[in-house]
Amino acid sequence: MNGERPGPSVEARILTVAGDTASPRFDTLVTEEPLEIRLRAGGASRTVAITMRTPGNDFELAAGFLHNEGVLANYDALRGISFCIDRDVDPEQRYNIVNVDLAAHELPELDTLERHFTTTSACGVCGKANLDALRMRGVEPVASDAQVDAATILALPDRLRAAQGLFARTGGLHAAALFDETGTLVNVREDVGRHNALDKLVGAMVEAGVDPRDGFCCITSRASVEMVRKAVAVGITALVAVSAPTSRAVATAREAGLALAGFARRDDLVLYANADRFR
Amino acid sequence: MNGERPGPSVEARILTVAGDTASPRFDTLVTEEPLEIRLRAGGASRTVAITMRTPGNDFELAAGFLHNEGVLANYDALRGISFCIDRDVDPEQRYNIVNVDLAAHELPELDTLERHFTTTSACGVCGKANLDALRMRGVEPVASDAQVDAATILALPDRLRAAQGLFARTGGLHAAALFDETGTLVNVREDVGRHNALDKLVGAMVEAGVDPRDGFCCITSRASVEMVRKAVAVGITALVAVSAPTSRAVATAREAGLALAGFARRDDLVLYANADRFR
Repeated sequence: MNGERPGPSVEARILTVAGDTASPRFDTLVTEEPLEIRLRAGGASRTVAITMRTPGNDFELAAGFLHNEGVLANYDALRGISFCIDRDVDPEQRYNIVNVDLAAHELPELDTLERHFTTTSACGVCGKANLDALRMRGVEPVASDAQVDAATILALPDRLRAAQGLFARTGGLHAAALFDETGTLVNVREDVGRHNALDKLVGAMVEAGVDPRDGFCCITSRASVEMVRKAVAVGITALVAVSAPTSRAVATAREAGLALAGFARRDDLVLYANADRFR
Repeated sequence: MNGERPGPSVEARILTVAGDTASPRFDTLVTEEPLEIRLRAGGASRTVAITMRTPGNDFELAAGFLHNEGVLANYDALRGISFCIDRDVDPEQRYNIVNVDLAAHELPELDTLERHFTTTSACGVCGKANLDALRMRGVEPVASDAQVDAATILALPDRLRAAQGLFARTGGLHAAALFDETGTLVNVREDVGRHNALDKLVGAMVEAGVDPRDGFCCITSRASVEMVRKAVAVGITALVAVSAPTSRAVATAREAGLALAGFARRDDLVLYANADRFR
């Protein structure tokens, strides 16, 4: 990004698959970037949250977050919000850090406060101390040249739904499943949180000593960067999402050698990363 | 729960609305409960994460989470996982805390480690120090007897989608919108995270000094307890979700006096809490 302000979406070269036909085209991905929220008062400064967010209305995001957590009772408690332009900030992160200046002369008692913080979710990174910590977490490339049959992939979402007993009754659950290379269901786990569903599946795989390299993982949700990281961490070679991936998810999958497909429906799907691994 | 093990779903009395007809019935809600993960080694113990999850496969969730974060390289690093039965644990939380015993003789360097933790998301509570902190956060009851017109509500999801410019292009964005009592859109915000979208909307409302009591909020996602808490914190009187609410979301909305509707489609919706406020 070279210090440019990130937009809410980015264009990416993808491959759409419908039946037997694959067509290259450009697609719009929603941008997923970290936002670090720093509180400042009376010369003191402290990072209070990091969330993966879509750039845009960042000051409102910070103000709304702090209001929800009881830090900003009203607009008068706020002296200003600005992007951090400290010289030591990496240009790439320039629009990923906001300073919230309080009208008060000192920071609220953050040690107490911290226990009350609701870290905004769907982010998967909200325990991070700061953006540096986030960047430090590299990804080990997936060591696989396993080929994935696109026709097999197309059948997965229906099989996953069929295996989701609880979802049928509540309509409110995500699932993550491991399929072998023939498309046979190996294991499925459900949870109200998509990250939890994948964590449960990974836990079951670790416990059973399953080698994930022989199959692929299908998730009922969108693919965020954190879902991609989890798939890479356990050595899954292909991740199939029923819904859309984010900009960071695609970039990370490409970097890590993870085959990534999205919008997997009965008759078509979109290949976002390492498309050469799909047959 | 009185110390009983929570199941993956609970039954709740709800009201289905189709056209002009409202019918009471029982519905199955997905259970949403906190899970605190504690690491133990060589006599030392430390809480490393709290996530809102659906009970079931809790040990796998803990193992998968720790594996994804690099704490458990493999199954051999694990000595055992068990629910916490310390006598000082509230019976209600007995199945919400797991102890993960490591084979190692001491805890990993958690101060360093903590920076790397990916708190599982869609939870909205992963910054919490422990379950006590979570429980401490009470909800201020919504002070409103505003009536909500069900016919108006039914029109909202379509209006929200129409206002969602970016979603149409990416298919990967959540939105939160404020509508006035006549169903006219006041404000809409989008984000890859549903909590962020609501935070942005709240920030915009705080900034503009909008009184949320005169309208209602519509979200494109499911309603988790954290979404309900955010709505209550800013004083919104009715929350309309396009998808399903969780057990905790419904319980919290009932307690706080928030009118809660879910599965809002063009022709029908379900009323989960304070149904008497819907006309």
